[in-house]
Amino acid sequence: MALRLGRLGSRPCWRVVRGDCGQLRAWCPRGAFARICPLPGTAGPQPRRGLGHGPWAGGGSRLGTGLAAALAGLAGLAAATFGHVQRAEMVPKSSGARSPSPGRRDGDDDELARRCSTFMTSPVTDMRELRKRPEDMKTKMELMIMETQAQVCRALAQVDGVADFSVDRWERKEGGGGITCVLQDGRVFEKAGVSISVVHGNLSDEAASQMRARGKALKRKDGKLPFTAMGVSSVIHPKNPYAPTMHFNYRYFEVEEADGNTHWWFGGGCDLTPTYLNKEDAVHFHRTLKEACDQHGPDIYPKFKKWCDDYFLIVHRGERRGIGGIFFDDLNSPSKEEAFGLVKTCAEAVVPSYVPIVEKHCNDSFTPQDKLWQQLRRGRYVEFNLVYDRGTKFGLFTPGSRIESILMSLPLTARWEYMHSPPKNSKEAEILEVLRHPKDWVH
Amino acid sequence: MALRLGRLGSRPCWRVVRGDCGQLRAWCPRGAFARICPLPGTAGPQPRRGLGHGPWAGGGSRLGTGLAAALAGLAGLAAATFGHVQRAEMVPKSSGARSPSPGRRDGDDDELARRCSTFMTSPVTDMRELRKRPEDMKTKMELMIMETQAQVCRALAQVDGVADFSVDRWERKEGGGGITCVLQDGRVFEKAGVSISVVHGNLSDEAASQMRARGKALKRKDGKLPFTAMGVSSVIHPKNPYAPTMHFNYRYFEVEEADGNTHWWFGGGCDLTPTYLNKEDAVHFHRTLKEACDQHGPDIYPKFKKWCDDYFLIVHRGERRGIGGIFFDDLNSPSKEEAFGLVKTCAEAVVPSYVPIVEKHCNDSFTPQDKLWQQLRRGRYVEFNLVYDRGTKFGLFTPGSRIESILMSLPLTARWEYMHSPPKNSKEAEILEVLRHPKDWVH
Repeated sequence: MALRLGRLGSRPCWRVVRGDCGQLRAWCPRGAFARICPLPGTAGPQPRRGLGHGPWAGGGSRLGTGLAAALAGLAGLAAATFGHVQRAEMVPKSSGARSPSPGRRDGDDDELARRCSTFMTSPVTDMRELRKRPEDMKTKMELMIMETQAQVCRALAQVDGVADFSVDRWERKEGGGGITCVLQDGRVFEKAGVSISVVHGNLSDEAASQMRARGKALKRKDGKLPFTAMGVSSVIHPKNPYAPTMHFNYRYFEVEEADGNTHWWFGGGCDLTPTYLNKEDAVHFHRTLKEACDQHGPDIYPKFKKWCDDYFLIVHRGERRGIGGIFFDDLNSPSKEEAFGLVKTCAEAVVPSYVPIVEKHCNDSFTPQDKLWQQLRRGRYVEFNLVYDRGTKFGLFTPGSRIESILMSLPLTARWEYMHSPPKNSKEAEILEVLRHPKDWVH
Repeated sequence: MALRLGRLGSRPCWRVVRGDCGQLRAWCPRGAFARICPLPGTAGPQPRRGLGHGPWAGGGSRLGTGLAAALAGLAGLAAATFGHVQRAEMVPKSSGARSPSPGRRDGDDDELARRCSTFMTSPVTDMRELRKRPEDMKTKMELMIMETQAQVCRALAQVDGVADFSVDRWERKEGGGGITCVLQDGRVFEKAGVSISVVHGNLSDEAASQMRARGKALKRKDGKLPFTAMGVSSVIHPKNPYAPTMHFNYRYFEVEEADGNTHWWFGGGCDLTPTYLNKEDAVHFHRTLKEACDQHGPDIYPKFKKWCDDYFLIVHRGERRGIGGIFFDDLNSPSKEEAFGLVKTCAEAVVPSYVPIVEKHCNDSFTPQDKLWQQLRRGRYVEFNLVYDRGTKFGLFTPGSRIESILMSLPLTARWEYMHSPPKNSKEAEILEVLRHPKDWVH
């Protein structure tokens, strides 16, 4: 354990490295790269356990549209282990974008196709469209969120070792679609959802008025407000009570006004919800996020950290959902490129901030009482998500949303006991104290 | 089973009958009265298992106020088994109302004291105050909700046979208080909460504007709107997947206007949430409620039945929470007395509509798959309560609410699986069909 903690204490170094097979090596700490391209005679081509195999799987005909999923940042694309992931696409895409080798034009080995080959499946937007506008932020962001999701899903599937992500591709009638990936009831993970969406259309009156309320006075164009929204969103609930839950979400929004001006902004964040407090984990998580933010300015982490503590407050309990992390919204300065750079750096920090913590604790021994406390904390997670989370509420109240993608954030199981109150000086009381009075973990 | 079903099919007759010991015989079907006054050498004086005994009990210092609990109708008073219930009062009441023999004045054996002796503990309102205004609706309603709760808790504790209700008495700083009773992890019941509250004070601006939105233009008196709100509320979650969840709530509201006029109205309802459809149970439940409503007019049940189907809709799922029952609000006609009569009749129908169903199914055999489906349905229950239920939301968003009383409605455990969809023609699909397309159970 000491050795593993030592690894957390030092500055982590996680990199994607391309192997000789042209695919990706796994996310892993410096000096310990693991090939995950399928090798002859290895587990590569063998099916791994995933959703959709059991008698309860079904759902193949359950389609939905996903304006909400996108506006809520509930969007994702996942690669469990590239090359042998279970694919459960919901909508056979009719455009030329989908092919056995995703994103690849026949005989064309261009840079975009090469990049897309590392994704789980082809992007939501047609490849021809993406090729037409390589410098457009919509293209850059879509590729970035798909890349992020591939990295996260790959890292999680590797840690789990048993279960794989199911991949549901869905289309939105009004424009765009998404890919929702869920790994459920694995060895390490109780439920891990990673989702992207890329949607476009015209803002509803309700959405426009919400934006006005947030200080965005948008001028309609022929009575309409064309928008594009995209994002990656994820909630990871491990089984072991000593392995914390993690959530992240990065999103981009564009609205076109009557005068041709485009309003744009980014939002997102990443936060940790432990069942029990582990100070070294808390410091590692926050330090990794701080290092990412610090690359773009010294004031960013303190601001986003406080924003996170303020946002993830279960008001009726007077408790935060977890020990925080970073959160931001309406980010539209200093420039589109620089804001994107910050978001990209933060997205790249997801795996190194979280995966070492799960690896460290996924085999910890625990008691039934530890599991009970975890289940009660899961109940609090549900309370926050259903009662307060703006993205979830917006999604639920938007007709035509893809509910299963929005509610993938809920844990597999949760518990509510009347008047439960842990004994003083217990480890349960210790985490409650931190949830009630957030701490600064990095000085 | 046939015999028991036959009992459900015939018109039930449940009555409180006073035994020789001056206390109550149990709620039971006609012709099968069971004494529940403690008999020498019986279980009477022996402690039964209830909340607050385990290492996790604690909470003695967790007080709260409960405007929300009352406005939300989250209010209750419970007698598990009169005479030997576990009492866990949270607030030693300073008025003279509380005494070892609740509600009884020294040497005074008046009718009010006799009636109160059947309750779990003394009413929220001081006995002297209640004596001063016997014909006031506030007095009548408070006594009625306490009676209802005693009856319900007693009937449930008798069915459970092992666990008892804990009784938390709480006071509201601004005026009034409540009593929350919970039986948790019993033999039959996973979690059963029965709660009353009686609160008074001045309406907040927010509450007043909500009432304006509902068509009640209230004239302030010196800038204030004095109100009294009281109600009984209950959610019962049995363990066995074949024993359905039941909820009921009856409430009364008075607001005093500047000109001395008093606005008053009643609200309430009772609805059933089965894990699996049992048509005989559904017919019994609805028929019992219809018979109660029919005593006050032939149009009442159809109107309240539809209101219930409309209210308990999980909009984002397109499913009702359960198979309905009755629901109504803003009831202020034809007269205060007649409206009260209807509410009282409905409250008296709670036990006969529900308890025979639980008794019938609490020992049914079930599979792990049945339990899993129950847990998924519990998840839907949580979704409705946290996302849509007006009472719950109002409670959560009212500062100073007693959160534990509001959230006692949540099940002990719940589950969310991504894209769960039962096979066609399964018994799971059968109940889903009814939840999506409510049926008329009584013609």
